[in-house]
Amino acid sequence: MATSKPAGLEGIVAGDTEICSVAQGDLIYRGYEISDLAENACFEEVAYLLLEGHKPDADQLRFFKDELISNRALPPQAIDTLKTCAPMLEQGTAVPMDVLRSTLSVIGHTDRDCQDNSPEANLAKAKRITAKIPTIIGHMQNLIDGRDLIGVDTGGDANLSHAANLLYMMTGERPTPEAEKVIDVSLTLYAEHDYNASTFTARVIAATLSDMHGALTGAIAALKGPLHGGANEAAMVMLAEIQEHIAKGGTVSDWMHNAFETKKKLMGFGHRVYKNGDHRAPILQALGKKVAEQKGGEFVQLFEIGEEVERIMLEEKNIYPNVDFPCGMTYYTLGIPVPQYTPIFVASRVTGWAAHVMEQHANNRLIRPVSNYTGPAVSKWNDA
Amino acid sequence: MATSKPAGLEGIVAGDTEICSVAQGDLIYRGYEISDLAENACFEEVAYLLLEGHKPDADQLRFFKDELISNRALPPQAIDTLKTCAPMLEQGTAVPMDVLRSTLSVIGHTDRDCQDNSPEANLAKAKRITAKIPTIIGHMQNLIDGRDLIGVDTGGDANLSHAANLLYMMTGERPTPEAEKVIDVSLTLYAEHDYNASTFTARVIAATLSDMHGALTGAIAALKGPLHGGANEAAMVMLAEIQEHIAKGGTVSDWMHNAFETKKKLMGFGHRVYKNGDHRAPILQALGKKVAEQKGGEFVQLFEIGEEVERIMLEEKNIYPNVDFPCGMTYYTLGIPVPQYTPIFVASRVTGWAAHVMEQHANNRLIRPVSNYTGPAVSKWNDA
Repeated sequence: MATSKPAGLEGIVAGDTEICSVAQGDLIYRGYEISDLAENACFEEVAYLLLEGHKPDADQLRFFKDELISNRALPPQAIDTLKTCAPMLEQGTAVPMDVLRSTLSVIGHTDRDCQDNSPEANLAKAKRITAKIPTIIGHMQNLIDGRDLIGVDTGGDANLSHAANLLYMMTGERPTPEAEKVIDVSLTLYAEHDYNASTFTARVIAATLSDMHGALTGAIAALKGPLHGGANEAAMVMLAEIQEHIAKGGTVSDWMHNAFETKKKLMGFGHRVYKNGDHRAPILQALGKKVAEQKGGEFVQLFEIGEEVERIMLEEKNIYPNVDFPCGMTYYTLGIPVPQYTPIFVASRVTGWAAHVMEQHANNRLIRPVSNYTGPAVSKWNDA
Repeated sequence: MATSKPAGLEGIVAGDTEICSVAQGDLIYRGYEISDLAENACFEEVAYLLLEGHKPDADQLRFFKDELISNRALPPQAIDTLKTCAPMLEQGTAVPMDVLRSTLSVIGHTDRDCQDNSPEANLAKAKRITAKIPTIIGHMQNLIDGRDLIGVDTGGDANLSHAANLLYMMTGERPTPEAEKVIDVSLTLYAEHDYNASTFTARVIAATLSDMHGALTGAIAALKGPLHGGANEAAMVMLAEIQEHIAKGGTVSDWMHNAFETKKKLMGFGHRVYKNGDHRAPILQALGKKVAEQKGGEFVQLFEIGEEVERIMLEEKNIYPNVDFPCGMTYYTLGIPVPQYTPIFVASRVTGWAAHVMEQHANNRLIRPVSNYTGPAVSKWNDA
């Protein structure tokens, strides 16, 4: 039989959303352009916008920040899960995205509203989950580094923003204002992107009238993949390979041409929707490069290599970088361990996922496509 | 803006599959009709068919059964997770489907092939997961019942079939041949159903090139929902309500008419694809009824009530029962605790999910639809 077209539901409208518009011309979160948000809103404001459906006033923002801060600490069951799983990170059978998935799943069991899909309960759960993801990431990194869990009773420093506290929880050091700004903007850029694969996963799960924690656990599993969120890690791994090639006397150009010839997939390039460039990439690239210039040395070289990779891809393949490409370089420059890039993506995208779960529940229909059977014709089990 | 049609991807072909054909006329697993499989194959044969792609010969079947038996025991990290989570089952913030999700997620971290998506690794993981799901369910039930974990070192009794061992692990009692047969057939009936919501979830996750355990963890989250796998539990809860209504002097008919008037959703009826009846329902109903007749008393009455509910639904609403309706009555008759009905569905459907993950990885394209933006028009963040 014929293969069904379009593959991967490309271009198929799977539903309505008030949350986000992704188009070549614009990336809009609930009526605000991404460049406007990146310049003028902090991540907490963006999270509020996505979850509550409108921009917060000053009181609402203060109250929301307090809600996040007071919900940062993890329940003991989550700490137990992290301690059970951490040794498997070291032995390499697990990666941080896997452990984040398990820990969020267990946190669901401790949430008093876990089985309640009402709008109020879903919103409360969404805020609690948003508050806790950076703490999971931080504690996990502490366990990897063999240090005591930072802020285990408090979830960190109540004077720090969501972005700054994330870095603090991972390292024990309070970031510079420049580093905080870069992380904050990256969280804004990553927060939402309509029916991408992980958000669509969350909606398919939620549409069975399953719960918020379950939907977000599935979304983490989807984001892990290198064709989706895992691309920011993969982009940096690729750049490290190119750096090594250069250290041995090679050039970006010959590494790239070899990659083209061997049909190696270059990570952090291209996008299902953005054929002519990703709005988010130049915003993050400019900020990351500024930090690299302050730090100097290898970081400046990294961005130079990145720009040459981008130039060759555009000239020879007409493919633009997506946000994951500058993200890899930027997080590397900030000293973040590569396997935590995609978990940090979760710390941001969780707000978009939760908004979509709430939207799905508010006007629900089971998401259940059909398939085209290409298997064998019918025969009898007991024949032959 | 207009609402996109069709909602919930109804009738949209999302891809090809060689695994299953779901149509009003036939339900086929890889070329064999469901009625043929239910009558002539045991669950292990069906699982082999789905995972390996063809019917096993006698040696292959023996070897496959041994593979399952030798992989039944859980790693210590899974036991730790179950013990961490069990108290939350008692306090009601978690249900068994949630704990099953967390436990499978943690098992992923212990699997030596977790990060390997090759066909060989995926197949090996699929078999190991299939072997372990009944053990998770059994241990969980042991913890709920406050008894020692049955078969903690062995995963049960190596002389028992997959179906019989599942019941043994839950209760410590070896089932009668009749009970074993009913569970075995129910596992066959539930094993696969093309692009249903949980399988589609698994495919969306796998299509990012994420891993088998992650995809199946997300699928469990989807199956939990009462519009999907959770319906077998919900159907029995509804029947218990009707029984109580009758005990107070009411009738099935007046309970039903009250439900129609108050627009109460009746669980275990209707299906997105089967508008004129579900192939699986009469097969399971006949087997369940036979066990009920052997047991007598309340169980016979339960099936009588169920049949009257079915008759009224068909006559007045023209809606047929799906497999979840007789499943609820049947599992109840076998003495299985209601919150374990959907986990047992997982013990079966995990084979179909895994087959779909392998098929997705074998010919992959990211599954990423688009959405129709219905949110506010663009305004500036700093305006007003």
